[in-house]
Amino acid sequence: MELPVVSLPDVQAHKPEIPVNLTRVGVTNVKKLIEVTRKYKRPIVLISTFDIFVDLPFNRKGANLSRNFEAVDSVIEEAVRGPVYEVEELCGAISRKLLDRHEYANRAEVRMRSEYVIKRKTPEAGATCEEVVDMIAEATAIRGKETDTIVRKVIGAEVLGITACPCAQEIMRDRAIQVLEELGVSDDVVREFLQRVPMATHNQRGRGAITIEVHDGVNVPLDKIIRIVEESMSATVYEFLKRGDEAALVNQAHRNPKFVEDCVRTMAQRVVEEFRELPGDALITIKQINEESIHRHNAFAERIATMKELREELSS
Amino acid sequence: MELPVVSLPDVQAHKPEIPVNLTRVGVTNVKKLIEVTRKYKRPIVLISTFDIFVDLPFNRKGANLSRNFEAVDSVIEEAVRGPVYEVEELCGAISRKLLDRHEYANRAEVRMRSEYVIKRKTPEAGATCEEVVDMIAEATAIRGKETDTIVRKVIGAEVLGITACPCAQEIMRDRAIQVLEELGVSDDVVREFLQRVPMATHNQRGRGAITIEVHDGVNVPLDKIIRIVEESMSATVYEFLKRGDEAALVNQAHRNPKFVEDCVRTMAQRVVEEFRELPGDALITIKQINEESIHRHNAFAERIATMKELREELSS
Amino acid sequence: MELPVVSLPDVQAHKPEIPVNLTRVGVTNVKKLIEVTRKYKRPIVLISTFDIFVDLPFNRKGANLSRNFEAVDSVIEEAVRGPVYEVEELCGAISRKLLDRHEYANRAEVRMRSEYVIKRKTPEAGATCEEVVDMIAEATAIRGKETDTIVRKVIGAEVLGITACPCAQEIMRDRAIQVLEELGVSDDVVREFLQRVPMATHNQRGRGAITIEVHDGVNVPLDKIIRIVEESMSATVYEFLKRGDEAALVNQAHRNPKFVEDCVRTMAQRVVEEFRELPGDALITIKQINEESIHRHNAFAERIATMKELREELSS
Amino acid sequence: MELPVVSLPDVQAHKPEIPVNLTRVGVTNVKKLIEVTRKYKRPIVLISTFDIFVDLPFNRKGANLSRNFEAVDSVIEEAVRGPVYEVEELCGAISRKLLDRHEYANRAEVRMRSEYVIKRKTPEAGATCEEVVDMIAEATAIRGKETDTIVRKVIGAEVLGITACPCAQEIMRDRAIQVLEELGVSDDVVREFLQRVPMATHNQRGRGAITIEVHDGVNVPLDKIIRIVEESMSATVYEFLKRGDEAALVNQAHRNPKFVEDCVRTMAQRVVEEFRELPGDALITIKQINEESIHRHNAFAERIATMKELREELSS
Repeated sequence: MELPVVSLPDVQAHKPEIPVNLTRVGVTNVKKLIEVTRKYKRPIVLISTFDIFVDLPFNRKGANLSRNFEAVDSVIEEAVRGPVYEVEELCGAISRKLLDRHEYANRAEVRMRSEYVIKRKTPEAGATCEEVVDMIAEATAIRGKETDTIVRKVIGAEVLGITACPCAQEIMRDRAIQVLEELGVSDDVVREFLQRVPMATHNQRGRGAITIEVHDGVNVPLDKIIRIVEESMSATVYEFLKRGDEAALVNQAHRNPKFVEDCVRTMAQRVVEEFRELPGDALITIKQINEESIHRHNAFAERIATMKELREELSS
Repeated sequence: MELPVVSLPDVQAHKPEIPVNLTRVGVTNVKKLIEVTRKYKRPIVLISTFDIFVDLPFNRKGANLSRNFEAVDSVIEEAVRGPVYEVEELCGAISRKLLDRHEYANRAEVRMRSEYVIKRKTPEAGATCEEVVDMIAEATAIRGKETDTIVRKVIGAEVLGITACPCAQEIMRDRAIQVLEELGVSDDVVREFLQRVPMATHNQRGRGAITIEVHDGVNVPLDKIIRIVEESMSATVYEFLKRGDEAALVNQAHRNPKFVEDCVRTMAQRVVEEFRELPGDALITIKQINEESIHRHNAFAERIATMKELREELSS
Repeated sequence: MELPVVSLPDVQAHKPEIPVNLTRVGVTNVKKLIEVTRKYKRPIVLISTFDIFVDLPFNRKGANLSRNFEAVDSVIEEAVRGPVYEVEELCGAISRKLLDRHEYANRAEVRMRSEYVIKRKTPEAGATCEEVVDMIAEATAIRGKETDTIVRKVIGAEVLGITACPCAQEIMRDRAIQVLEELGVSDDVVREFLQRVPMATHNQRGRGAITIEVHDGVNVPLDKIIRIVEESMSATVYEFLKRGDEAALVNQAHRNPKFVEDCVRTMAQRVVEEFRELPGDALITIKQINEESIHRHNAFAERIATMKELREELSS
Repeated sequence: MELPVVSLPDVQAHKPEIPVNLTRVGVTNVKKLIEVTRKYKRPIVLISTFDIFVDLPFNRKGANLSRNFEAVDSVIEEAVRGPVYEVEELCGAISRKLLDRHEYANRAEVRMRSEYVIKRKTPEAGATCEEVVDMIAEATAIRGKETDTIVRKVIGAEVLGITACPCAQEIMRDRAIQVLEELGVSDDVVREFLQRVPMATHNQRGRGAITIEVHDGVNVPLDKIIRIVEESMSATVYEFLKRGDEAALVNQAHRNPKFVEDCVRTMAQRVVEEFRELPGDALITIKQINEESIHRHNAFAERIATMKELREELSS
């Protein structure tokens, strides 16, 4: 049976009884299929999860959440028709549209997460395998009072790798030296042996992450971020390893042992080296979580700083 | 076979090759059994999950993570022997110990989450049932240069409830009016009927959360926070409802429809009313997530402000 | 530095010290990008998560897990080159390849999960919106002793919807009747009113799921399964609803209240009606989980039966 | 305002329109505080998560879910007053009560999961530390037609540990041999060295699990199951390790490398050795998941068998 047609009230535009500002009103866990066109590469199709917010002044009862979807949809449609887009630009465009449609808001935020497939070649056999990394993009549009709207964008990735512990390895190495000495092996041979064969230690899955926040207009290649994260751990993981690859990988990880702290510092150094064009106020977050194989808990390290701060520390 | 005894190297105290400060180094997802003694009440036994961090200067390779555990353990042991403790005081004491043991650190952070069981009486039958809420406590100790160490503590809770949508209800109400009028029912009867029987709308699980950050020494009762959160939604959920209770609950929720925005504003007002003794710089975060029954995504609202800001908005 | 080349031992082919058969050896949580060609439709690109197993006899130490990846990869490559494929056929082909490569195994199992995007039109405004459902496909290949390898395949989906409770609604309806009678409204008008305006009840997100297991060769359209699941709840959810849509959806859900039990039974009836060609031994699992808005816990109902059993119950 | 009192309808007892049997109707994710009294030990307080089901015949519309809670509550109350209880007996008692209260049901199922804290002593320093393991208990009560109700119970645990890969280690060992030979070290010294110092390999968090299903009346100590699981991996993990402990643990894990398959087989052997009193029809499930440090995916092995089957394989 049909409902009678009535004119629909706009409850959200009412004055609220409690005049309190809201920092953030919106929707979370919105899934959208997006197709990102890229220069010189095939477009990528992603199922992305969006969180979308605006602020709300004390004199307005509710935000029209359905407008958020129209903003997302209209931008994504244009993106599909238009030429070149990076995911953080997509978020930036959505954040601008949100301010257009929520005329009472001064700030609009868009966060996007997605799985992203990259290709890697295994270390020994050189076989190609696919890896899934987690991509993060964000944008915040701030309505200027006398100036234009300002948009800040974040692009980043979280990548799995292997980390081997330097501390336990140093102990195992000292013990190897002691045993070889007891067995009468000469110092020279011991030294040579230990240079060629790395000793045991505990190793585990590590998860490194970098995000870079820049003003609208600056472009930060995602693939470069992913490469920095994966190269800052003891070794890269692969979905598919032939036996020779597996040995090469274990060897490489054990030649390159790293604490969580080392991973974060290596990422910081690489970001400074490889993103020389980034402005000093670009906010960088760098994080490493090791799922310790000898514990139930995780080891964690993090640095949050501007490019200027990182540059100064590294040039001192 | 026994390993030969060797003197153990302290790899972490070395100078790192990359002189970058770290914002946060530590461990996450550490589970500990804690027993919290309380005034006038039975002690509570909780399996709590801790995240524990210190900062690390550029000239030190690693933090001694095992020291974190000694700090946690020694404080928990004292807590069990000692007289009265709130969970946020426990975190505060751990954060102080962390600074004692990590002499190179200027800042120590402790975050604790735990499930916490409370009792509720059902609305009609008055039956007692247990509910599980999520408790959050945090502490940050900052080493003063010329002053004493400052500790700031956070205490809070996340609680499930039911929220009914005011917007859809207003439309359903308008349609009820229209149909009753078409059937020749008088305005007075329509008005009286709608006052006594609330119309349908979509309703769903909501999750409200409040955290309050205060200086060491100020006490914020957790049970008061939990009560504010649960009373700020359309109605309280219960694990166990007789049929009469269920009807009473549906009736109550539909008489008290609320947007995510309304829930946050009600919580803000209640926090201001019930915590008059809190200092103006106490940081308050208030959050509401509605798991919308008509969508796959969630509705979200949040306010982050000091007590001073909330008081000013509400007294204007 | 290069490692010296040595011949690599095949540890897995050794006899194990403990001669125990293993039901299942393999890998879980393997993510692969797959592209499924379909008749009359655009190919779909999916990031799918695979679990892959073979059984292992007592006289073999280990399974060569890397062979699993070769099986997956080679089938996916062929699938991309080849013409028409359903996801469950992809799993079936992988399970056959697994038996080819693990000559010691008698049974190979492949399970695949993936997010899958469908389009829906909103009930009133007729706007198109995207919805994400969870797709499940499985295949089991069993090596025949004197016969050919037998492959059984499972295809299914889990879909979100809204469910409204009939029990609370009946109480609210009785109360509406009582109040209207007290106000002197005639029985005829009351009856007519309640036919045109459904009364309130608690409603919530429901998750319905159907899987259908068939012999290799039988084709079960995924889109049909998805439609049955979404039509067996009180109403369909949409990511994007204009205000008029929202009212229409609330109205529809409240006209069609359903317990978890009802959802499962409706799905069972629809499966019997719409898959008349399925063999009697096709195993059907039907499941409904309601995330009760009035409780912290979920309501659950499930039926596991063959098509033959369901047909007999429904024709009795 | 008060609702008028009306007599409440029993919607669930109606005949359903679709006469389909349901395998399982009930509630999931119910959290309850339970206190289990034990012989010679302190009572344990646990926040346990229950799933509770009964079957439902084709001629009954719904199960009275609130009766499930009364069954759980009444049994837990008795358990607290009564003398000795194991968690699986608690589940058994709940399943019997469920059949008492759901007179139309022939089968009642109870599943319980809980975190459970055990103490361990570290390998070198002998320090005590707490570990959290996951405890599982289940019970199924089946109404006999001419006999008494039969109850089958399951008790089990999932425990974290460390596993080191034998395959990569054998390759690293072969390379160590080759290098030492190239450096002119004698075969005897090489052999002696490799006996005293284990070579590197990848290692990771493993999760082992055992569940044992027995008839009511047979008692299976949970602590024995936990010990078997933790001793079947390469080494035990600890929340707290002094540096000497860490070296001892790395050494132990590398002296005891294990595939997922080996862990399952070791558990099978230990279960057969240590539970000689178990009846032949006791169903055993044994599972091992290794969170491979060199891959993003997990390695998995499983055995599901009766005690009789395991005994026969191991005595052959």
